[in-house]
Amino acid sequence: MCQLLGMNCNTPTDIVFSFEGFRRRAGLTDYHSDGFGIAFFEGRGVRVFRDNRAAAESPIADCVKQYKIKSLNVIAHIRKATQGEVNIENTHPFIREIWGENWVFAHNGNLKSLPDMSESFCQPIGSTDSEAAFCYMSEFLKNRFRRKPTEKEIFESVQIITKQLAEYGTFNFILSNGEWMIAHCSTNLHYLTRKAPFGKAHRIDDDGVIDFNDYAKAGDKVTIITTSPLTKDENWTKMENGGFVFFKDGEKVIEIIGTVKDMEDDGTLGNRRVA
Amino acid sequence: MCQLLGMNCNTPTDIVFSFEGFRRRAGLTDYHSDGFGIAFFEGRGVRVFRDNRAAAESPIADCVKQYKIKSLNVIAHIRKATQGEVNIENTHPFIREIWGENWVFAHNGNLKSLPDMSESFCQPIGSTDSEAAFCYMSEFLKNRFRRKPTEKEIFESVQIITKQLAEYGTFNFILSNGEWMIAHCSTNLHYLTRKAPFGKAHRIDDDGVIDFNDYAKAGDKVTIITTSPLTKDENWTKMENGGFVFFKDGEKVIEIIGTVKDMEDDGTLGNRRVA
Repeated sequence: MCQLLGMNCNTPTDIVFSFEGFRRRAGLTDYHSDGFGIAFFEGRGVRVFRDNRAAAESPIADCVKQYKIKSLNVIAHIRKATQGEVNIENTHPFIREIWGENWVFAHNGNLKSLPDMSESFCQPIGSTDSEAAFCYMSEFLKNRFRRKPTEKEIFESVQIITKQLAEYGTFNFILSNGEWMIAHCSTNLHYLTRKAPFGKAHRIDDDGVIDFNDYAKAGDKVTIITTSPLTKDENWTKMENGGFVFFKDGEKVIEIIGTVKDMEDDGTLGNRRVA
Repeated sequence: MCQLLGMNCNTPTDIVFSFEGFRRRAGLTDYHSDGFGIAFFEGRGVRVFRDNRAAAESPIADCVKQYKIKSLNVIAHIRKATQGEVNIENTHPFIREIWGENWVFAHNGNLKSLPDMSESFCQPIGSTDSEAAFCYMSEFLKNRFRRKPTEKEIFESVQIITKQLAEYGTFNFILSNGEWMIAHCSTNLHYLTRKAPFGKAHRIDDDGVIDFNDYAKAGDKVTIITTSPLTKDENWTKMENGGFVFFKDGEKVIEIIGTVKDMEDDGTLGNRRVA
């Protein structure tokens, strides 16, 4: 299995405090040492850093730390290989172009006997179940809509295809197009939104402490999504199994538990903020 | 306009000697300062580093230098923007999945009034003519073959679509799937193959000197492709305008001048080595 980390914000934010705890789980505080990757949205573009070495000791991860890239949407992954060798092409997050956007996807879980995709328009490059599932999702979405549909249609469609894919096994994932972030919990995924009044946080994986008052402005909102909580003194929410959350501008817009329902018809999800 | 750098080898090779001269053209010895990118194939995977800062002064480029990644196929690009803003999504090289492989593409030139791709399966993310042309090429290739065809069919198909695209303007490019590298010269592209007996080389853009005898083994073959020669004491070949060269395992396999012709029928290009 693996661990996931996502960040969705309303102001460009440096993920280093969270990433420094997270990367320790790749060999120091946990065993997710089979490579790592981190993708930073920057406008419509993505910077991605990958290594087949453990994140805890990778010079690429050191470079990420030093560079302190600020972004509205970040997805990172530390790998414990289940299917596929330890190499760059099997390293999450995976990226595909959908409707002229970069879509970034990272998965925690294990899917068995996925459909053959060897003649699909979107084919996996590596040998992971995760990339194959993301390609299956991409093909479904592109065939369903030739041009980018509304957020509501996207979120509904992601739920439909996810439920098909989840029949093949465990399918926790984080997905982003740089505007929003969708989290799906099959078995284990947590999130937390930081906003005013800000406080201190202590990392679980080492002695790192931060006082967000030193960094954040009054209106800042930052949501962190991760497999297992990263701090010991904040109020993490465990997602419902089978649930979906749509995050935008740093906070939860809508949460779906169980079935596809209960959304507005105005084409956006903007009026369904429940955070 | 921009400048291109490609490397195709028969043994994993460190591109730093060439890249260090090349990156100086991004602000020091020339004006290609509108961002840079470099993609390293590693098996079927790709590591890509991009920055919207000039390569000469980018900390991301410093990271590339320090890490000394060895690869069989590398494509780099320093940008002087003609179409599209200076940002990450407009930074070459561009990457798309074709037949379950990473294809990496960088362009030097300017294409005007390309066909609309807003309902294509493969759509551009940024606003450059270059990425749009690469998407047009990807769509053509995927529609022509559902599964990966022979090298001969790939090379012929790339020539066909290139000739269509070259009608829109200047279209020098380097393209690789990690196994081979195709170079097309519309107006300006040079290459050079280093193999035994190895000698010294002096960089044009600074005082850098290398003796390849200190690094290379007897059977090593390394081809460097670039817009403008990088060393002053080696024998660079200027490609013919309108010409294509297919490189594999570090050397030229076949060169096409003018029309699509003169290839073998055995499905590979392996018996047409002319280097």
